[in-house]
Amino acid sequence: MSSEFHKNLYLALVHHPVRNKDGKVVTTAITNLDIHDIARSCKTFGVQNYFLVTPLESQMMLANRVLDYWSTVTGSRLVPDRKAALELVRVKESIESTIEFIVKKTGQQPILIATSAQGTEETTGYREMRKILQSSERPCLLLFGTGYGLIDEIIHQADYLLDPIYGVEDFNHLSVRAAVSIILDRLINQE
Amino acid sequence: MSSEFHKNLYLALVHHPVRNKDGKVVTTAITNLDIHDIARSCKTFGVQNYFLVTPLESQMMLANRVLDYWSTVTGSRLVPDRKAALELVRVKESIESTIEFIVKKTGQQPILIATSAQGTEETTGYREMRKILQSSERPCLLLFGTGYGLIDEIIHQADYLLDPIYGVEDFNHLSVRAAVSIILDRLINQE
Repeated sequence: MSSEFHKNLYLALVHHPVRNKDGKVVTTAITNLDIHDIARSCKTFGVQNYFLVTPLESQMMLANRVLDYWSTVTGSRLVPDRKAALELVRVKESIESTIEFIVKKTGQQPILIATSAQGTEETTGYREMRKILQSSERPCLLLFGTGYGLIDEIIHQADYLLDPIYGVEDFNHLSVRAAVSIILDRLINQE
Repeated sequence: MSSEFHKNLYLALVHHPVRNKDGKVVTTAITNLDIHDIARSCKTFGVQNYFLVTPLESQMMLANRVLDYWSTVTGSRLVPDRKAALELVRVKESIESTIEFIVKKTGQQPILIATSAQGTEETTGYREMRKILQSSERPCLLLFGTGYGLIDEIIHQADYLLDPIYGVEDFNHLSVRAAVSIILDRLINQE
């Protein structure tokens, strides 16, 4: 694959199951800006599909309404590039159904790569992850948690957990939108 | 300065003068999410102050109202870390008054570093910029344009113009929030 490995990259923004600030398992709300910002970052870095994962039917409908608007003549005339970015988005009810979609599309089980702002588990660095992606023919699914992050069970099920993004001080509270863009830049652009 | 050069870093999100999609000079609206997301990225990467630049009094008031809320007991109890991030924010009426603030605070003229999604001018790479920042004792002000970017006059007045962030295809429409986080990560974290 060499420099073309982004053609195997998929990304999911998980709204359930994730933790809230008290550590409880919750379902977060889809936000309009997460749809747009992360779709634009995914399109820029060549990610193949961006999945919004939520089990709530009302939330799935909301997301699909936003996507429909931008695929119409009005939306696509207003900001033509936005349509190209939002075409990558798929709304899925679970991580399992996201994986099924990728298996159906590519014929292969994706490598699961979890992300976390905490560095408590055994984590993989970005240079190493890039090498793994470059030498693999399999699709790869990057998992990002909303709220206070993915639950431990998901992290344990994943094949890899990426290093947290460390800042210069103890403060490490990047938005998920910022974390996605930094991680894609590190995986795709860095040598 | 070595690895502590972030202590000289300042960042401005410019709402005027910027271009709209037809190339006209306009004033864009401050958005709540630009305040929060970019403040969190700035705090994480050790930026000293984050300036919201707008000449519109109503917009300055709006921004200050958001900041006031998060500095109160209610806001800071809700999300304690948010207060720490938003404490970096200053609302300024122009790039000139932003520079004046930095001169007053540090006693030195800041190095002006412009950013652009277009690569038409002579640009500076991230590794080179990092070296310049590491070897300088002066404060540095990173300028980001909202809308369709900073006007040419601002870019020409700056001491440096950073390389655009290239994606893998022609599509290069990162949100300003994503661009800020990637650029801070490249300047602060990369070797």
